[in-house]
Amino acid sequence: MNIDGKHYRTIWLHPHNRAVIQIIDQRLLPHEFKIVDLTTVAEVAHAIKAMLVRGAGLIGATAGYGMVLAALEAPQHDRAAFLESLARAGEFLSATRPTAVNLAYAVQRQLTAIRAVETIPSMLDMAYQTAALIADEDADFCRRIGEQGIALIEKIYAHNGGKTVNILTHCNAGWLAFVDYGSATAPIYAAHDKGIPVHVWVDETRPRNQGARLTAWELGQHGVPHTIIADNVGGHLMQHHQVDLVITGADRVTRSGDAANKIGTYLKALAAKDNAVPFYVALPSSTFDFALRDGVREIPIEERGADEVMYMDGVLSDGTVTTIRITPADSPAANYGFDVTPARLITGLITERGICDANEAAITALYSEKV
Amino acid sequence: MNIDGKHYRTIWLHPHNRAVIQIIDQRLLPHEFKIVDLTTVAEVAHAIKAMLVRGAGLIGATAGYGMVLAALEAPQHDRAAFLESLARAGEFLSATRPTAVNLAYAVQRQLTAIRAVETIPSMLDMAYQTAALIADEDADFCRRIGEQGIALIEKIYAHNGGKTVNILTHCNAGWLAFVDYGSATAPIYAAHDKGIPVHVWVDETRPRNQGARLTAWELGQHGVPHTIIADNVGGHLMQHHQVDLVITGADRVTRSGDAANKIGTYLKALAAKDNAVPFYVALPSSTFDFALRDGVREIPIEERGADEVMYMDGVLSDGTVTTIRITPADSPAANYGFDVTPARLITGLITERGICDANEAAITALYSEKV
Repeated sequence: MNIDGKHYRTIWLHPHNRAVIQIIDQRLLPHEFKIVDLTTVAEVAHAIKAMLVRGAGLIGATAGYGMVLAALEAPQHDRAAFLESLARAGEFLSATRPTAVNLAYAVQRQLTAIRAVETIPSMLDMAYQTAALIADEDADFCRRIGEQGIALIEKIYAHNGGKTVNILTHCNAGWLAFVDYGSATAPIYAAHDKGIPVHVWVDETRPRNQGARLTAWELGQHGVPHTIIADNVGGHLMQHHQVDLVITGADRVTRSGDAANKIGTYLKALAAKDNAVPFYVALPSSTFDFALRDGVREIPIEERGADEVMYMDGVLSDGTVTTIRITPADSPAANYGFDVTPARLITGLITERGICDANEAAITALYSEKV
Repeated sequence: MNIDGKHYRTIWLHPHNRAVIQIIDQRLLPHEFKIVDLTTVAEVAHAIKAMLVRGAGLIGATAGYGMVLAALEAPQHDRAAFLESLARAGEFLSATRPTAVNLAYAVQRQLTAIRAVETIPSMLDMAYQTAALIADEDADFCRRIGEQGIALIEKIYAHNGGKTVNILTHCNAGWLAFVDYGSATAPIYAAHDKGIPVHVWVDETRPRNQGARLTAWELGQHGVPHTIIADNVGGHLMQHHQVDLVITGADRVTRSGDAANKIGTYLKALAAKDNAVPFYVALPSSTFDFALRDGVREIPIEERGADEVMYMDGVLSDGTVTTIRITPADSPAANYGFDVTPARLITGLITERGICDANEAAITALYSEKV
């Protein structure tokens, strides 16, 4: 999507040097926009581990390009040594964030593709092709989520007499978390680009503030009207008919339609249900976990460091970025990263294959290979 | 309640100088504990307006003592001039936060009491007596809320086999908002002081962070085990049986039991209902508005400055208190202060007269003078 009027993806090859990968250092957003060069596998691993890049889709794409650098770093004289070096680099990259499925997937896909060709120059070519393919597929899936989801916004727009469509989202399931378009934001960008007036209520999303920091920034850069609100506000807005539609992303969705997503999503789904506001979860197929049924019982919820609750980053009036403690020195804090929204609260799932109800019959009708 | 092992109220007469009122500057909590002397009506007005003191009960008590200083400042030679000066001071104090009912009530109560006596020395005595009475009544109402509410905690304790009772609260309806005990916290302090093991989940309460700043601090000072959580977390905890009881305060409760309280309360009530967790609202009688029935339609919701969402106070690593901006410079924010929890989501109301269901029949049975 656009930054200051210019189109960007979240990761790309340096335009004049194919041995350099470029990314946006997302840790600095929204206070600083900085493009970072990645020139070694070690730098790629650091970028993933230290969260210069984050979000399932973008982590996968970064690992894909990381394997390109691994191929450039490998011994170029001997096929066996080349492949052994690549495998080691793959293990190294996979260990940076062991729970991200897309990371291991991208590494394995590269290894399989590269092993299938013979000469080292053709293996290098294959690494480049596969990295581009992983990134392009991610962008394409998100674009198709947008094509599917725009129908929901168009329908509301047609029924509300041409007034602005108010959409609430939680956390950042935007293009910054993928390669382009995003999942929850894809229908919003599609509607905005088509000229439908949309306004987005952006949940701040404590404790890491991905909504206030990232979603607000990317919507603002692309010119989409939006307003940041505390996570506490959504229910009140829904009671007063100021939300037409909720769209969130998801981290894992079971075959019965239960959706794990950023902590607090469940509370918004309850409020949507209580006020008859449609609540949709947008996801690429890779987010389904067809092995699970009961999300609340079966999906493990990551407990993260209490520091994320106790400290906050921001800018001082002189522009310096700094960290402050916002809680009493002696009070403990707890930090659960995700919660599970039961399928009964979800109006539907927006996937790249189409929109379906959040139940096993509807999901497996769309994904018949998973029955 | 206790601070560092010593009992405090939130407002008191200086022990050696009856012309000085002492308060805690709550703006500095939890990072600094500072007692401030108020020696003039102007200083009292500033303390209320600038929110050194806040919370309905404490604002009322502060206005009561403010009228003592007004009596000391008034011309002491002439009854009419004395009363005229007092009336002017009362108007001045009432204008500091015009929406706080307790403020106008305390001023009027002082004026009525003082006018009822003749000589200036006896009018001065009456001002002192009335200020003490307003503060004592506030503390007494909260103490009785604790006596009523402890039964709920004891019942859970008896049924859970002697395990710790986990209570979730939102915002600060603690002793810092009143003169002592608090409303939502009164049953918690009563149970803790009686030796029942309690643990409090403290909602951070964005955007002003009254939970993280004030509730956590006062519970910690009194030795009550607690954990600060982001406002997003409560639903997840309830899904996983980690909350036995929710108690919040209220800013206004209708005769049908709808409760306006700090923004986000409604979301916790929805989660409590969805998980069969008892959800109670604690309030002194003065919080009822018997003129209203439909809270969502009739209670006006204050919209506050967006700065509270965009900026955050805290301490740097060197101990300096400072303010940072946490949102993109160009993104707007909205800040609704309260929401309304419909009575259908409230298990019961804890008042100083007893616990009742949240419906008109039950409330007016307890307050038969309001039928």
